[in-house]
Amino acid sequence: MHDIRTLEFSNGSLQLIDQRKLPLSRELYICSTYEEVEFAIRDMVVRGAPAIGATAAYGVYLAAAAYQEFPHEAFFSKLREACHVLIKARPTAVNLRWAVRRMLALAESSSALTPPQIAERLLAEAKAIQQEDVDTNRRMGSHGNTLIPPKANILTHCNTGTLATAGWGTALGVVRSAVEAGKEVFIYADETRPRLQGGRLTAWELVQEGIPAKLIADSTAAFLMQQGKIDLIVVGADRIASNGDTSNKIGTYMLSVLAKEHGVPFYVVAPVSTIDYEIECGGESPIEERSREELSHVGTCQIAPDGIEVYNPAFDITPHSYISAIVTEYGVARPPFTQSLATFQS
Amino acid sequence: MHDIRTLEFSNGSLQLIDQRKLPLSRELYICSTYEEVEFAIRDMVVRGAPAIGATAAYGVYLAAAAYQEFPHEAFFSKLREACHVLIKARPTAVNLRWAVRRMLALAESSSALTPPQIAERLLAEAKAIQQEDVDTNRRMGSHGNTLIPPKANILTHCNTGTLATAGWGTALGVVRSAVEAGKEVFIYADETRPRLQGGRLTAWELVQEGIPAKLIADSTAAFLMQQGKIDLIVVGADRIASNGDTSNKIGTYMLSVLAKEHGVPFYVVAPVSTIDYEIECGGESPIEERSREELSHVGTCQIAPDGIEVYNPAFDITPHSYISAIVTEYGVARPPFTQSLATFQS
Repeated sequence: MHDIRTLEFSNGSLQLIDQRKLPLSRELYICSTYEEVEFAIRDMVVRGAPAIGATAAYGVYLAAAAYQEFPHEAFFSKLREACHVLIKARPTAVNLRWAVRRMLALAESSSALTPPQIAERLLAEAKAIQQEDVDTNRRMGSHGNTLIPPKANILTHCNTGTLATAGWGTALGVVRSAVEAGKEVFIYADETRPRLQGGRLTAWELVQEGIPAKLIADSTAAFLMQQGKIDLIVVGADRIASNGDTSNKIGTYMLSVLAKEHGVPFYVVAPVSTIDYEIECGGESPIEERSREELSHVGTCQIAPDGIEVYNPAFDITPHSYISAIVTEYGVARPPFTQSLATFQS
Repeated sequence: MHDIRTLEFSNGSLQLIDQRKLPLSRELYICSTYEEVEFAIRDMVVRGAPAIGATAAYGVYLAAAAYQEFPHEAFFSKLREACHVLIKARPTAVNLRWAVRRMLALAESSSALTPPQIAERLLAEAKAIQQEDVDTNRRMGSHGNTLIPPKANILTHCNTGTLATAGWGTALGVVRSAVEAGKEVFIYADETRPRLQGGRLTAWELVQEGIPAKLIADSTAAFLMQQGKIDLIVVGADRIASNGDTSNKIGTYMLSVLAKEHGVPFYVVAPVSTIDYEIECGGESPIEERSREELSHVGTCQIAPDGIEVYNPAFDITPHSYISAIVTEYGVARPPFTQSLATFQS
């Protein structure tokens, strides 16, 4: 059932499903340089915190390959510069920084080798990051599945599926694992304005796999909960502070407040690489503001009048007190999260 | 500053601003028959509960004018049929039924007259309904303005301005009155998916009049409240039960829950004609479900994949316990609403 390849490295270049073009056409976006990788992340050819991490890892390799004929010192100087550029492509997702740092650390610990040898190691490491992400998602799916009743109406936000990861998905991976376990789930996918990742990407994945689902406007979620039609909510995360405060796609905080008001369990699903143990609470997370055009236009259609200003934050912060549990590859963390998440720290 | 004419009757036909075309082009939609009026309401050429009421009143007149050569009994039979068709054009808004019933009652109380004389009376009555609505909005604006601090960030939902009424507006009318009174207001207008009445219509009105404002995605409202950036919320209503439960554009209930959680006052602004004293609570209100295309397409752009189902209710119901006050042309009603609203019943 599952043949979506979000990112694939072959013949010296990285092939990404161009998520800007979905769901109307399935096109590949090819990156042969780290600059193209940086653009792909920044322009959201690829999005979703884990997918961005794996993509950026290949970006570090592509930089190393490009500079491998440079003298040793110049090679490292260029490589560090490329890492810096890649990390800046999106400010909120912590996996991006995590993956780039892991790649750079490997390069630095291999400094006795020649640049071509280092590049070779970096390619293997990028492949490992990609494969580990799939394995991690599978494990999150198994742990998360323990939270899903045999029959459940599940609300999802944004896209947290195969397209957001190297494969399977985080929150939508839990849904996949529940389906695989034979559970009778029905998905309400909110469309997730402004970039419509729910309507464009999650809906596309659900249709591809024949999982029963309905698409809703973001503001319909409250009405569904009021009617008792939502049994639980699963969302992903772009950055989790050590106390459990979660930065995720704008609208996540809204859902968490609504969940609390209606007694609906609210689960965050994310790999441990998403946890930023360097920050204590969500207020320290940077929040990316994106362009006016995301609200004033949909595709080529202008929908808002000339002259209106917009406020367009890409993320919000859900305080830990609104979160029922955080599902990672190491298990399900329950409040108090400062303690339960600390047990996952390597 | 104010020259938007939502509906205007002249030369035997009703001219409507075609709200399906805003904000990109300002076109008139001309109705010469009641069937065209019914279509204009159903297809949302005109929308907004008070605007629909006034439009439907002209529809009743156009039916009467069309059938005025019929014998007396056939005239009334055709007129009643037209009223029935007009009432069915949109199921939720109570003003529609209110206006049509008022027109029909006048016709029936004038049954001693000839059909042409009755038609003439109906035209005068439709004009009275239109003018009364402007006056009513002005009075609501004055009463509502007493709730607005000298400096306030105000969140609005959907379109409740001149375009939703015969002029001035309900909730946005309160904003206009606050601006007229010299108050320093800043408006956050949510775009109001799926039909984007906030992004297309409210934003357009705000730009036309130079009122400082920003457009936001619906799911950004919670994040703004979390940051303390919203001082109060004003919304309109399509139907208010005698206990204060309010049917309004989908997303209203969501905002009311968020307002309660953040201690933000939540005000409903609507004329007394919106109050349905025949129903005790919101659960008895019909909720219109609209088409799949409203979610799968924006303009001519397809945004959701083929094959995905949708759930697209046009309205939701906000229980009275989430409402701080209901502003009508007779004054500001506070809880308990069963008592306070009853004092407005004629």
